[in-house]
Order: sequence, then structure tokens, then C-alpha cells
Amino acid sequence: MADLKRILEAVDCELDRSLERLFGLLRIASISTDPAHATDCRRAADWVAADLADLGFEVGVRETGGHPVVLAKHLDGNRRHVLFYGHYDVQPVDPLDLWETAPFEPRITTGRDGIQHIVARGACDDKGQLMTFIEACRAYKIATGTLPLGVSVLIEGEEEMGSKHLPAFVGAFRDELAADVALVCDTGMWNRTTPAITMSLRGLVYEEVRVRAASHDLHSGLFGGAAQNPVHVLSSIIAAIHDDNGRITIPGFYDGVEELPADVKAEYAKISPSAESFLSTAGLKESAGERDRLLIEQISTRPTCDVNGIWGGYTGPGTKTIIPAEASAKVSFRLVGDQDPDKVREAFQAFVRARVPADCAVDFISHKGSPAVSLPYDHPLLTSACRALEDEWGNPAVRVGSGGSIPIIGDFKRLLGLDSLLIGFGLDDDRVHSPNEKYNLASFHKGIRSWVRVLHALSQ
Amino acid sequence: MADLKRILEAVDCELDRSLERLFGLLRIASISTDPAHATDCRRAADWVAADLADLGFEVGVRETGGHPVVLAKHLDGNRRHVLFYGHYDVQPVDPLDLWETAPFEPRITTGRDGIQHIVARGACDDKGQLMTFIEACRAYKIATGTLPLGVSVLIEGEEEMGSKHLPAFVGAFRDELAADVALVCDTGMWNRTTPAITMSLRGLVYEEVRVRAASHDLHSGLFGGAAQNPVHVLSSIIAAIHDDNGRITIPGFYDGVEELPADVKAEYAKISPSAESFLSTAGLKESAGERDRLLIEQISTRPTCDVNGIWGGYTGPGTKTIIPAEASAKVSFRLVGDQDPDKVREAFQAFVRARVPADCAVDFISHKGSPAVSLPYDHPLLTSACRALEDEWGNPAVRVGSGGSIPIIGDFKRLLGLDSLLIGFGLDDDRVHSPNEKYNLASFHKGIRSWVRVLHALSQ
Repeated sequence: MADLKRILEAVDCELDRSLERLFGLLRIASISTDPAHATDCRRAADWVAADLADLGFEVGVRETGGHPVVLAKHLDGNRRHVLFYGHYDVQPVDPLDLWETAPFEPRITTGRDGIQHIVARGACDDKGQLMTFIEACRAYKIATGTLPLGVSVLIEGEEEMGSKHLPAFVGAFRDELAADVALVCDTGMWNRTTPAITMSLRGLVYEEVRVRAASHDLHSGLFGGAAQNPVHVLSSIIAAIHDDNGRITIPGFYDGVEELPADVKAEYAKISPSAESFLSTAGLKESAGERDRLLIEQISTRPTCDVNGIWGGYTGPGTKTIIPAEASAKVSFRLVGDQDPDKVREAFQAFVRARVPADCAVDFISHKGSPAVSLPYDHPLLTSACRALEDEWGNPAVRVGSGGSIPIIGDFKRLLGLDSLLIGFGLDDDRVHSPNEKYNLASFHKGIRSWVRVLHALSQ
Repeated sequence: MADLKRILEAVDCELDRSLERLFGLLRIASISTDPAHATDCRRAADWVAADLADLGFEVGVRETGGHPVVLAKHLDGNRRHVLFYGHYDVQPVDPLDLWETAPFEPRITTGRDGIQHIVARGACDDKGQLMTFIEACRAYKIATGTLPLGVSVLIEGEEEMGSKHLPAFVGAFRDELAADVALVCDTGMWNRTTPAITMSLRGLVYEEVRVRAASHDLHSGLFGGAAQNPVHVLSSIIAAIHDDNGRITIPGFYDGVEELPADVKAEYAKISPSAESFLSTAGLKESAGERDRLLIEQISTRPTCDVNGIWGGYTGPGTKTIIPAEASAKVSFRLVGDQDPDKVREAFQAFVRARVPADCAVDFISHKGSPAVSLPYDHPLLTSACRALEDEWGNPAVRVGSGGSIPIIGDFKRLLGLDSLLIGFGLDDDRVHSPNEKYNLASFHKGIRSWVRVLHALSQ
């Protein structure tokens, strides 16, 4: 423990220089979706590679067909081996006029509450977050001359454009990427003083459904009252997906959905936000979800269905008295636990087909499908990681589910057999993807200290 | 009756010249919606005016702000007075390449079944039809030197563009247009050998409804399971409009809808087409309408509701995982009997509002509204008109309802207090508004004879 204390002191001593380095990375406008910034993306990759090389990593900037990947290794005998993942690319900055200062000129501001923030595009997502890990490694090197376990670092440059080339890269270099567990710093805290480990990411099934009736749009005066209207048919199908309690009625849909462990459920009952507070940023007050579930379950550990778009018939200004020939909807499902995307897709299609009258035809376009990813609640490293976070923050780490997806996490599991510990220090008010993105100085500083403690715990 | 026989003989003798005159009118490309044909519209008006002047009518070509109206009068003492309505304008001819011969070069063709047709744009709608009436007047003049009752003729030039200026014209010249009944030749026969009188035209209420939930589109991963989805809300509302028997569930909707007289219902039971035969042109087989109603009722004498268009959220290619902020639909109702458009509109809005959850807002755009128009089944002139038609065709005239609307008929009732006898000789296969429009030679010839008999009957 004397060692740990020395390393944490190194973090504190180094903080100003850590910030300087972070600012250096933040100054690079590595917007991956904008071809005009391709050179900036490569500069960011080179910057990260150089910094890791300084720390004694064996580093390569690898080509992918898109923006390059930085792959770095600091291996040292037969100890436990972690693979850290982050991304150097950032979101576009539009609308630029809403930024209070230039997005790629990072600065420290002090809020009305006296809290200090780092403000820049990427301050949180993901440059600030990934540098917490690299600076933790640096503190180890400064204080001990080495790292406490084997560390590989994979920093990609296409996360904000869907990690297009990464699965192929991971598949092609699976041997080089072998590790015992993946560490990811791209998620958030529970709140400003309570750390969190993200236990699960929801999967996705995305279907487009088209209902066709007459061979062409019909005159609603001549045919109204007799001809089948596909908008009515599609509306009835959509209306039937949820029952009055917000539960999805598609047979077999909940197969593979487990109840939370009792201790997690008890913890959730204490910490779940109210619908009113959670939904306030959306201008809403009441949950429309499953009635017998906590809000935190509804948005993270329970599967859902949403119509993402619907269209059919005349949608221009004024009136047109037709019975449309067809109507379409995009319908997506968020999956949890062991729900099988293929089975959910089939069950949905069967549900729709059973509700299409004889005179109508239906067809489907199957878009994305990915299963949920989750860390087992009894994962051997979870307890020590949680304790390390509690030691730093003074509050127990909350084990949360995320409602969204980080597809590469599923690929780590599928291609490399790796579970991921998702530990991040972002906050809900960080304005990620929006103007004036920020990262609390405390998130950065205590984030570095948190990784020091987690690496220490994992090395035991 | 000797008189009547002589007049009918005059029709037969005059037929070749009647056709020549019709062809003269058909050669004028009076497409009202195309500004390039404005001069042609005026030429058609002048042509009709000159023809009526030849018959001894006092004629004026009146300005309306759009294409002119022909107003002609042949008044003769205190006898019964009819106002005949028709239109000289025609639909555009696109797609031109589907016409077998030029649309404004009329010709007689003989079908495979040996039946002769007049082929041209306007052959049926409405030049052929309106000339049946004018030629009937001519036969009277040839055989008797006069007309058997007072006749006013109103021929407009904007029917195919919604009769934009006609209601104001009718309102402004209501004294000049005074009559005992309106006669209209712009509808069809029941079939090739059975004449029909159209007893009713459905009214219309057209509403646009928008349901709004969140202040902006939400990420379906972060908010899915909690946030209200306006597409789900709108779909549930649309699904609730009809019950399992196809009946509309909006409270008060059927107020003012009367059952048919028993004799009409009995007649309908004999003549109603099957759903399969009626819907075959639409590529459909089964009626989606009220289960306990005859198909003929469903499409003509019963009120209906159809969604004409729906839209919300992401409707482009591929996927976007949002919960839409809003969803909209265009919803229209066909009205019958004494249904009040304002009350139907209010009842629909109340029905929607009652189904919008607390977190959603709803707003409406109110488009068209017009009541149904109907001729009372006990109208004093109906029986004699029916008998006159039966005398010509050998089959009893069917009293039918039309599913669509001819708005000016409502204006005749509202502004002039006039009931309308809708008698026409079009057939379902006349390709009205389509390439190769035709009018059976028999429709034209026996149509003229029919008007001779109807005028004779009405003059008694």
C-alpha cells in the first residue's frame, strides 16, 4: 500500500503537466466524419502513439482502410493482462456559433457553483476520458518505473462514425489483442460523487415493415367504406405491440430476460431517479414504460420497442382524398440479457403477419441486429474494481446498465472472448456531442487516481 | 304522346348532325387547369353560347375571375322551370403516349363486343353528357318549335379545378338562377342497360392531427422504455376509430345518419355488387367496411373514415434510432344524411384529445368541410323522372348514392334552395380522367332521348 500512496501522490504532482498534455490532444480537430479533417485524425493518432511510446509502450499506428488505429503494448512477463480501449476522434462542432469559445482551444472555466471544468470538443468524449488511463500509467512509471500488469492500449479513430473498420481489425489481429479483460473509459459516473461501473449495454433489432393493400392509391370517395386502408392496418399493429401496462405483447419477446439479482434490485430501488427528474431534459414528466418497473430498469435493464419513423399516403400541404396503397414504419427493439436478435426479429415478423388481413401484403427490410452485452454480476474482477472506485470517491460504486449500445464491446466478447469493465467519469451535464462540451477537472484528476487504484486492484 | 313520339323521331333523324356538333366541341382543348389553354376554354364557352343562341336561348358569356360561365335562358310564361348544369372544361391529357389517337381529334370506334364508342378527352366528362341535354332541347325545337318548360342552362369552365369561382357567381346571380329544380348530367348509369338517378353525394370533413411529446427527437437507447412515443399514441388513436365490425366508434358520429327506406334497401339487396367484383380494379377482394352492410351501402350511403396520410420520425433510407418528437396524420370523413360537419369535427377532436396522454400535446388543422347532399326519396319529381328513364331503357331506374362529392350541388341547395336531379349516362369503363376516354354511342343517343322523355315528364 505504500506503493499505491506514492503513485497517487505522483498523480497529484503531475496534474498540471497532465492537463497540458490533454490540452495538446484537445487542440487537434480530429473530427472523423468530416473528410476535411482526415489529416487531423492522423495527427491525433500520431500524438497518442508518441505519448505512449514516451511511456515505454511498443507502439504502432495501424492502417484500417479508414482513420488509423493506435495499438500499443507494455507487456511484462506472465502477469494479468488488460486491454484498454478508447477513441481519439470527436464529434463535429456544429452549430459553431453556440460555442462560448473555440471548440479546439481548450480552457479551464469555473462554474457558478465553483466547480472547475475543462471545456473543448472531446474534453470528455473521449480524449479526457482516455487520458485518465494513460496518465494513470504515467504515474505508475514515474513512481515505480513500470506498470503493475500487462497493458495493451487500442485507441481507434472512427467511434463517432460507427467504428466501421474496427471489427475487421480486431478480427484480423485477435492474437495480438489477447488479454484477460478489457477496460473501457467511455461511460459515466452515477453522479458527481458516486462512481459507476456499467454492467450492460442494450442490444438492438431494427426492422422496417411495409403493409400494402390496393394496387394504387384509391379515391376515398369512391372506395371509402370498402377498401382496406394500410395505414389503419399498420396503426393497429403498432397499437397492439404494447399492452396497457407498457409491456410488449409479442409472444416469446421476453425469452432470455432475467430479473436483476435481489441486491442490485434493492440498490436500484434506493437510487432510481423519478420519471419527472429523468425526463425533464426532454420536456416530459411521466414515464410511458412498464408500469411495474423502476425508471432505472425501464431505461437500462429492460427491453423496449419504439417506432422510429412512420409514413404512408399523402403528407404534403393541404388535402388529398386518397386511400393510400401502402404504409411503412421503422420499428426497433432494445434487447437485454440473453434475448436472441434473430428470434426477436422472427417473433416480430410473425406478430405482424398474424395481424395483416387477407387483402394486404407485408414485407420487411431487416436492418441492424446485435445482442445485449453484459458483465456477469459475479465476474471475479468486479468486486475489486468496485472497491478501488469506492476507495477513491468515498461512495460505493453503482452497478448500472446503459440503455444504448457500444457495438465494439460485443465484438470484444465475440471475437476475443473478452469481458469489458466499463468505468468512466463523464457526467450527465457534460454536453457530449453538443456545443461547450466539458469534463469536470475532478473527473479528470480523480479519474486518473481511480485508474491507478483499479490497476493496482487488478494486479493483486 | 303523339308529340313525344315526334320529338324522339327528331332525335333519331338528327343523330348524325348531333354527333358532328359534339365533335366540334370535343375538338376544343379546353383544359381548365393549364393556363396555356385559357383561350381554348373561352373558345369552348363561346361555342356553347353560340349553339344555345341558335336554339333561341337568350345567352351570355359571363366573367367570373377565372374561366367564363355560359348562362342561357329559354323562358316561356309561367310553366315549370329547370336549371341545367354542366361544364365545358376537361381534364389534362397526360400521359399523352397512352392515347391511341389524339385526344382532341374525336372519332367513333367499334369495340370487340361490337359496341360503338365516341373517343376523345371530354367524350363523356362532361361534353358528351351536357350535349345530350342540349340536343334534347334541339329536338323539341325542331319538332314543336319550342320547349315544354322554362329552361336555364349554366355551363361552367372550372369544374375540373374545383369550381373555384362558381359559388360566388351563383350567390351573386341567385335571382337570375331561380328555378324549380336543377338537372345535372355528370353522373353514371347503373350499368349499360340500367339507368340511374344519383340520390346523394357524400359530404367531407378533413382534419390534420399532430401529436407532440418530447421537445426534440430523443435517443431511443437513452430514453427508450420511459419517454412517450407520439407514433405509438397516434397509432392507438387511429386503431381505436373503427371497432372490429368496421363501425366508427367516435361518440355521436352517426347522429343524422338514417336507415334507407325499406324499398330502397330491398332493391339494394338485389343489385349490390360483390366486394370481389367491385374491388377487383383496385387489386382487392374483401371489403374492410361495416360488416353488417351491403357493399353498395358501404361505398355510398354510409359514412366512413380514412387516414389519407401519416408521417413522423425518421423516414429516410437506413436506420436512425430516435423516439420522434411528433407524429401527424391527415384524417378524413365522408358524411351522409344530416351529419353536421362541424359536429363531426368536434367529436373527432374530442375523441383524439381523450386519448392523448398527459405528457403529449395535440393540435389540429381543419381543412375542408361540407355536408352531404341528398334528394328526398319522396321528392315529387322523382317518380316521373324514374318512369321516363324506364320508358327509354326498358329497365327500372336505380336510385343510387355516390361516394364522392360534387360541391356545387350543395351550393345549389344552400344558395338557391334547389334540389338536383342527377341523371347521367356515363359507364364505369368510360376512362374518365384517363387516356382514351370514351362515351358509348348508345349513352349519347339514348341519353338525348332520355332527356326528351324527362323534360316531357317534368312538364306535365
